[in-house]
Amino acid sequence: MTVTRSIGFTDIDFDRNGKQVGFVSFPSSVHDDAWGVIRVPLTVIRNGATPTVILQGGNHGDEYEGPIVLGEIVRGLRPEAVSGRLIVVPAVNLPAVEASRRVSPLDDLNFNRTFPGDPLGSTTQQISHYVSSVLFPLADAFIDLHSGGSSLSIIPSAVLEPCADPALDARNRAAVEAFQAPFKVQIANFGDPRTSTSTAVRAGLITVGTEMAGTGTVTPEAVRICRRGVANVLRHLGVIEGAVERGEGTPGFHTIAGTASYVMASESGIFEPYHELGAPVDKGTPAGRIHFLENPGREPTELVFGAGGVVYGKRHPGRVRPGNCCMVVASPLED
Amino acid sequence: MTVTRSIGFTDIDFDRNGKQVGFVSFPSSVHDDAWGVIRVPLTVIRNGATPTVILQGGNHGDEYEGPIVLGEIVRGLRPEAVSGRLIVVPAVNLPAVEASRRVSPLDDLNFNRTFPGDPLGSTTQQISHYVSSVLFPLADAFIDLHSGGSSLSIIPSAVLEPCADPALDARNRAAVEAFQAPFKVQIANFGDPRTSTSTAVRAGLITVGTEMAGTGTVTPEAVRICRRGVANVLRHLGVIEGAVERGEGTPGFHTIAGTASYVMASESGIFEPYHELGAPVDKGTPAGRIHFLENPGREPTELVFGAGGVVYGKRHPGRVRPGNCCMVVASPLED
Amino acid sequence: MTVTRSIGFTDIDFDRNGKQVGFVSFPSSVHDDAWGVIRVPLTVIRNGATPTVILQGGNHGDEYEGPIVLGEIVRGLRPEAVSGRLIVVPAVNLPAVEASRRVSPLDDLNFNRTFPGDPLGSTTQQISHYVSSVLFPLADAFIDLHSGGSSLSIIPSAVLEPCADPALDARNRAAVEAFQAPFKVQIANFGDPRTSTSTAVRAGLITVGTEMAGTGTVTPEAVRICRRGVANVLRHLGVIEGAVERGEGTPGFHTIAGTASYVMASESGIFEPYHELGAPVDKGTPAGRIHFLENPGREPTELVFGAGGVVYGKRHPGRVRPGNCCMVVASPLED
Amino acid sequence: MTVTRSIGFTDIDFDRNGKQVGFVSFPSSVHDDAWGVIRVPLTVIRNGATPTVILQGGNHGDEYEGPIVLGEIVRGLRPEAVSGRLIVVPAVNLPAVEASRRVSPLDDLNFNRTFPGDPLGSTTQQISHYVSSVLFPLADAFIDLHSGGSSLSIIPSAVLEPCADPALDARNRAAVEAFQAPFKVQIANFGDPRTSTSTAVRAGLITVGTEMAGTGTVTPEAVRICRRGVANVLRHLGVIEGAVERGEGTPGFHTIAGTASYVMASESGIFEPYHELGAPVDKGTPAGRIHFLENPGREPTELVFGAGGVVYGKRHPGRVRPGNCCMVVASPLED
Amino acid sequence: MTVTRSIGFTDIDFDRNGKQVGFVSFPSSVHDDAWGVIRVPLTVIRNGATPTVILQGGNHGDEYEGPIVLGEIVRGLRPEAVSGRLIVVPAVNLPAVEASRRVSPLDDLNFNRTFPGDPLGSTTQQISHYVSSVLFPLADAFIDLHSGGSSLSIIPSAVLEPCADPALDARNRAAVEAFQAPFKVQIANFGDPRTSTSTAVRAGLITVGTEMAGTGTVTPEAVRICRRGVANVLRHLGVIEGAVERGEGTPGFHTIAGTASYVMASESGIFEPYHELGAPVDKGTPAGRIHFLENPGREPTELVFGAGGVVYGKRHPGRVRPGNCCMVVASPLED
Amino acid sequence: MTVTRSIGFTDIDFDRNGKQVGFVSFPSSVHDDAWGVIRVPLTVIRNGATPTVILQGGNHGDEYEGPIVLGEIVRGLRPEAVSGRLIVVPAVNLPAVEASRRVSPLDDLNFNRTFPGDPLGSTTQQISHYVSSVLFPLADAFIDLHSGGSSLSIIPSAVLEPCADPALDARNRAAVEAFQAPFKVQIANFGDPRTSTSTAVRAGLITVGTEMAGTGTVTPEAVRICRRGVANVLRHLGVIEGAVERGEGTPGFHTIAGTASYVMASESGIFEPYHELGAPVDKGTPAGRIHFLENPGREPTELVFGAGGVVYGKRHPGRVRPGNCCMVVASPLED
Repeated sequence: MTVTRSIGFTDIDFDRNGKQVGFVSFPSSVHDDAWGVIRVPLTVIRNGATPTVILQGGNHGDEYEGPIVLGEIVRGLRPEAVSGRLIVVPAVNLPAVEASRRVSPLDDLNFNRTFPGDPLGSTTQQISHYVSSVLFPLADAFIDLHSGGSSLSIIPSAVLEPCADPALDARNRAAVEAFQAPFKVQIANFGDPRTSTSTAVRAGLITVGTEMAGTGTVTPEAVRICRRGVANVLRHLGVIEGAVERGEGTPGFHTIAGTASYVMASESGIFEPYHELGAPVDKGTPAGRIHFLENPGREPTELVFGAGGVVYGKRHPGRVRPGNCCMVVASPLED
Repeated sequence: MTVTRSIGFTDIDFDRNGKQVGFVSFPSSVHDDAWGVIRVPLTVIRNGATPTVILQGGNHGDEYEGPIVLGEIVRGLRPEAVSGRLIVVPAVNLPAVEASRRVSPLDDLNFNRTFPGDPLGSTTQQISHYVSSVLFPLADAFIDLHSGGSSLSIIPSAVLEPCADPALDARNRAAVEAFQAPFKVQIANFGDPRTSTSTAVRAGLITVGTEMAGTGTVTPEAVRICRRGVANVLRHLGVIEGAVERGEGTPGFHTIAGTASYVMASESGIFEPYHELGAPVDKGTPAGRIHFLENPGREPTELVFGAGGVVYGKRHPGRVRPGNCCMVVASPLED
Repeated sequence: MTVTRSIGFTDIDFDRNGKQVGFVSFPSSVHDDAWGVIRVPLTVIRNGATPTVILQGGNHGDEYEGPIVLGEIVRGLRPEAVSGRLIVVPAVNLPAVEASRRVSPLDDLNFNRTFPGDPLGSTTQQISHYVSSVLFPLADAFIDLHSGGSSLSIIPSAVLEPCADPALDARNRAAVEAFQAPFKVQIANFGDPRTSTSTAVRAGLITVGTEMAGTGTVTPEAVRICRRGVANVLRHLGVIEGAVERGEGTPGFHTIAGTASYVMASESGIFEPYHELGAPVDKGTPAGRIHFLENPGREPTELVFGAGGVVYGKRHPGRVRPGNCCMVVASPLED
Repeated sequence: MTVTRSIGFTDIDFDRNGKQVGFVSFPSSVHDDAWGVIRVPLTVIRNGATPTVILQGGNHGDEYEGPIVLGEIVRGLRPEAVSGRLIVVPAVNLPAVEASRRVSPLDDLNFNRTFPGDPLGSTTQQISHYVSSVLFPLADAFIDLHSGGSSLSIIPSAVLEPCADPALDARNRAAVEAFQAPFKVQIANFGDPRTSTSTAVRAGLITVGTEMAGTGTVTPEAVRICRRGVANVLRHLGVIEGAVERGEGTPGFHTIAGTASYVMASESGIFEPYHELGAPVDKGTPAGRIHFLENPGREPTELVFGAGGVVYGKRHPGRVRPGNCCMVVASPLED
Repeated sequence: MTVTRSIGFTDIDFDRNGKQVGFVSFPSSVHDDAWGVIRVPLTVIRNGATPTVILQGGNHGDEYEGPIVLGEIVRGLRPEAVSGRLIVVPAVNLPAVEASRRVSPLDDLNFNRTFPGDPLGSTTQQISHYVSSVLFPLADAFIDLHSGGSSLSIIPSAVLEPCADPALDARNRAAVEAFQAPFKVQIANFGDPRTSTSTAVRAGLITVGTEMAGTGTVTPEAVRICRRGVANVLRHLGVIEGAVERGEGTPGFHTIAGTASYVMASESGIFEPYHELGAPVDKGTPAGRIHFLENPGREPTELVFGAGGVVYGKRHPGRVRPGNCCMVVASPLED
Repeated sequence: MTVTRSIGFTDIDFDRNGKQVGFVSFPSSVHDDAWGVIRVPLTVIRNGATPTVILQGGNHGDEYEGPIVLGEIVRGLRPEAVSGRLIVVPAVNLPAVEASRRVSPLDDLNFNRTFPGDPLGSTTQQISHYVSSVLFPLADAFIDLHSGGSSLSIIPSAVLEPCADPALDARNRAAVEAFQAPFKVQIANFGDPRTSTSTAVRAGLITVGTEMAGTGTVTPEAVRICRRGVANVLRHLGVIEGAVERGEGTPGFHTIAGTASYVMASESGIFEPYHELGAPVDKGTPAGRIHFLENPGREPTELVFGAGGVVYGKRHPGRVRPGNCCMVVASPLED
């Protein structure tokens, strides 16, 4: 039994000019809906075939700036204003988006750890398979819009995926630069090959990621940065007209250098950070301390930085368990 | 069968000078602990009997600045530095504090809606009964340290409980003023009589509340404001030496004027606020909009302010349901 | 501390003519919404003050015909067509309606076992207190629209609440008769005084209940019966014009005579009924049998009727546990 | 490490004549039973080896007619009355049957999406592997008895699995015809190869499926249709004596033609259907509407049919979410 | 609205001689059973009216020796062998017994903290109200059969409830002595008045409690002790014939002297006890230690005894949280 | 995309002499910790390279003697006392250990059914992959310390894994003998190849397993046996000095002979065993009976032994469901 095709289906015609607002549906046979589907919103805005850019939001269900900005494009961008084809998927991991959870409530999977997916796997695996096997072959570029999610506060930034091909890497850097985010950072995710951006890079697509603030909320400033950044990349790629609009930010690329860049909790308790985002910090200095509220007579435990640089991210919820990421340091990227 | 006494017990001697770091224990007979107790940390720092001030933190379990600052007092304040008696309860709603939840996981009750409590009720009711029937009669003043909790972002502020007795009201205003928070606000909680501060006022205690930022995290700035504010009130009451340390902030009292001060969600979706905390806003102007991410072709719904003033609080989680509090406006308090 | 007033608030003016579509809001301070409310839809359609009729749906959250028909009235009935005042509450137990559950997910309480309610109790108790203390005193008549809910299939019927006052009982019978349902039945609910209809009767209101099919679904036929029945009662009471529209059905009143009228499961398994709704049955004859699917070699256990009459209700889900109501028999009511 | 054999074990001897009522056991090492098993009931009634027919019920745990009728065969059919071998598995997905859930509570998997299974996978995968690797090779024919389950109401019908082999297809059609159900329909399940009937067909077995009413209940009429149909197929195959007993029903085969045959919910709310099962409907006409009970002032949303034919199935629970299957249309099958 | 009578109903006739095996049923209207009941098994074995002895098991749902022995009496004791009346309730807290949980899954209440109950409260409160308001007035003596439950291992013992009335206290001591358990202990439950035995004593009944081993299992030895003990008390009271059968055990009464008798966990971790049940221990000596398995480099924390005596109970589950009861010491009772 | 390496990382240097107490960390991106890790404690005590022995505890999270004894080694054993290298992993299945559950709460997987693991699978699969692909190649011997867990009470014993290679089998028997447990038993786990010990044997490691009492508690006696046994095996392997310390116990090996050695529950109820651990029993004799507490008038069902030998294990929780393992019989192992 060899099955290689997705069982997802759509009434969108990828080859038709104009705007089509629709869905791709994945059959889902569960207790309270034996013959139903999971409907992932999918919009095509087309005026010619090249270039094709995929705009993806809702990779994680608790990251909102991307979906909000992509919704504005779905409702507001006229096909005549486009040169080429936009495939807009504002809430790709729909079950997680509806639940406002990082991972899908259907199978407890992190969509961004399921690529390239499985056509007969669980729903999350079916969706990532659809993206990698149906959408990626249609496209020249891929923009994956993340925010920090419920657990992290992050400097709004454009994210560069590591790339072994120097030519593609250069194109990726140029596109990331075009986003004009306050910060640019290369993130390797511990080398995990199962993310959508690493899969896109391996498929040869120009690839841009983002981290837009976070903490599970929506901030007016991050929406503005995201709206401008997406438009800038589309201008850079020639899909919409106009010059890239300059933003203010830190010049040069940073990188999360390795496992020492993460300050991990060593005990269960409440983490009190000593620094705000963007603060310069030195290796070996205190990052914050963990309090034991149920036993206030016990002295708090201090955590220290394992690498120097600037505070790029910090944990949002006060409560921590051993292994939780409390602080992340970004260091300058040396070429 | 008439029972009026708490079944909570403690080995703290409220009449002994010096510092005692201990617990008050409430018998709790549950499936996995038939003969166990819930242990609420309780510290007495005593050097003479008058005045007696109760310092309470952890009323809600996801508000951390108060417990952190009270833990510093438990570990660091010497009895010789005190004139009178401090009863410090940094994590009064211990089950909620351990769970980092607003409400207790034991009975799903909001501790601050259970006063005056019930000696044979559920654990939350037993604790509030202990506070109102054992601690309040020992005290002259009561400081209840809140933050915004998981769902709200709030301007750090000292909070005035409405009081029918003009003399006590004046003493409360002076104590609230002494806290030297960036903002001072009277909050009536829809007139609910079941809060700890309203119960304290009815018991004749000088009463100060706070709201220290929020969103379920710990911020360095809010910890500093809380630490200074608690010390200031203790100085004001003569419990520790020194002059009140001035902070910077908005002069005068504000108030949450009524139900029109709250902007409530009308639909399920993701709320995008248009304003930051502290922004001046007018009645009838837009407060933000609700997005429907699962259906990006549908236009967002806009919410408007029902009262004018400054944005005092806003919802933190992006996800809203009908009835959720999205924005709160504070208006100047007129005497 | 004496509190007798509801903390629910509304912007509906019960004394203003015309149609007002709004909400009554109950403050609800929970983990993910510290300062929010539960919003219960409430509409007043008024053209003069007398008579005042309360139309209530959504007492249980999985009974849909009543709310559907009341929603049609909210959207479609013009005030000019009314003589008197309608207070329409289509989804009174809103949290249960949103969850499609019989009981409220907030406190696991059955709204219809909480009357007369408690102004400072849990949300369900606050709502029932609002109905009994705010709405009942405004009204002359009360219509409470039930269906069978998720667990029962019932003959569509108008329901008579037992009443100790002969004069009111006669008025109730006339109003129940006016509904023109296929079946008329008196139900005593084991004599429980905590239902809304028993409380309404004790308050002196003309009271009509219903059971409109059930099984947690919506049936076109039951919607039609309910729509006609509500209009008929309003005509009978003189609130809207026109003559009562005749329906077809069983003449005379039946009654659930006592505990012997219920066939209860004696084992855990799958219940196979032997009869359809409306079938005449005799005391002592078989009602159905319980199968043991995990052990198919074991003989099924047969259940028998404890009273004779017609099959008025039967359990919908196949799975039963001991004590589950499998069948209900209605017997002719003797006066 | 190559493992191809099931770790399930049984004390049934498939080669012994007579009736054996037993179990096949799958080791299951979980928290509350480290060394236990899952016991799936399995009965063999044998009188010679040919033909061998597998009778399977409980593929989904909330479909009861099949298990009830197979239980009658287990208890009542004498080996002497059989010519060949019956392998009866009335509750194949035992964990789901015990929970009365469509999917297994052990691993949240839909048994009918796990074929051909995995000998070292989760319990559901182990069971489907046992059926496909141990039972299928023993058999000539396979009858899989479904009902509509908790979420669907369906016209009682015999179901034809699509088959690429014309000779087998003809044998399947004859067997389906022999069931003498009120309705005959070909269902492709969106082309999913992971069902038990599609796997049986690929294995060359004569294959008959059913849908016996549904809504998670047991109906006397569906039990009668199922009892007669199973006996009829066994007569048709020569396993038991006698002529096929004629039933009344729609002549000819229907088919669920494609994705347009399903009416899917577009919003969250309560679905009110406009039609009963069996009603003839046209493409583009209204199927029903979705009500918004929490906001009765909002107009309901109407759904339309995407294909014409007869209403073959409809959703049972009133509550719907986007993507839920509300109606299914069957069209005449053209050869 | 004054309601004082239970809504529980039974078909047992307490005034009829002979054996009746039946149930008392409490109406329970929940989501999956709108008109069902909770059925508590109740048996009367009667041969004359005096004395009347209530035999109660299943007060907590995870204590099995009492229900097993009372089931033997229900099935095996002939009315002719009885002089007086036995009211046997082997599984009084039926919902907890079915769930094998200490507390009821219906309302999370500990039955033994709900006396005297509430006729219109939750199911647990309705059952305790039935026991105290219907059964107690019929009886002369009350035997409440406990074991240690899931969380405790306890020396099998007969338990004396403290009693303010010297005459009744003497009768209680004689009955407890008659049980002939290996150990006799007075337990005050922190003075809580809400237990069934304290309520029985206040009602003037001769009262005997037990603790039969525990840890949520059944032990052959504890079943033997319990069987003999119940028979012995019935002989002592003259209900059945014969002399009290002597057991071996510790002479004299012990007592749980106060809060210092309990060794409570101070940290979260795994408790390793140093002593077995029955070991003599001194105040201030080590009782055991708590290990931190997730951090094996951290030294374990040692706990010490706060009182001397013998180890009467110890915690069964390895996992502890602060406040969990780890050890209980019994000291000689001085008169 | 070919990935064969683990994404777990550690700062332990396996080639450095001395003691290193650290962790191996597995990236885990979940809702409340987007960039965190699962930290599994790992200690190396090294003084030369040969032999290398892996000491593993916490395979299941509710088995405590192994982790306690390995923690003593981590804290107390000096490198100078070692000849070779110890790799100590006291809580290998850390998420299960923290939850005190047999299976991991992260993915509901039984760690001991996941070997050889999957580098990109779920966390449990990643850990077992790390053990089999990183640790096993470094080692000469493997000791896997189990207890009975929450569901079983077992005779403390050293366990022999079946081995096809006679030379390795002899070395395994000698090492198991050296443990000097009260009982020695060969266990085949139904032939499942996914356990850590079967994988170790296939990898050619000298392999010793244990079962140290159980029931989810810690017993002083089992800790002593485990402490002595681990030291004995290390002495036997020459890692630490000294002669093997003799224990008392049953001579010769026993074996769980096959599926007939397990007494499985046939009904749901409460199991009352008739025998204690170690009792000699005959095939066909009664093992115990199942009581139906909710229906005490029903006769209990008796279970019988399917094989003779001694009672090696018995179920701990009183509550049983069909298929639960109630008793296990060990028979003499014949070579």
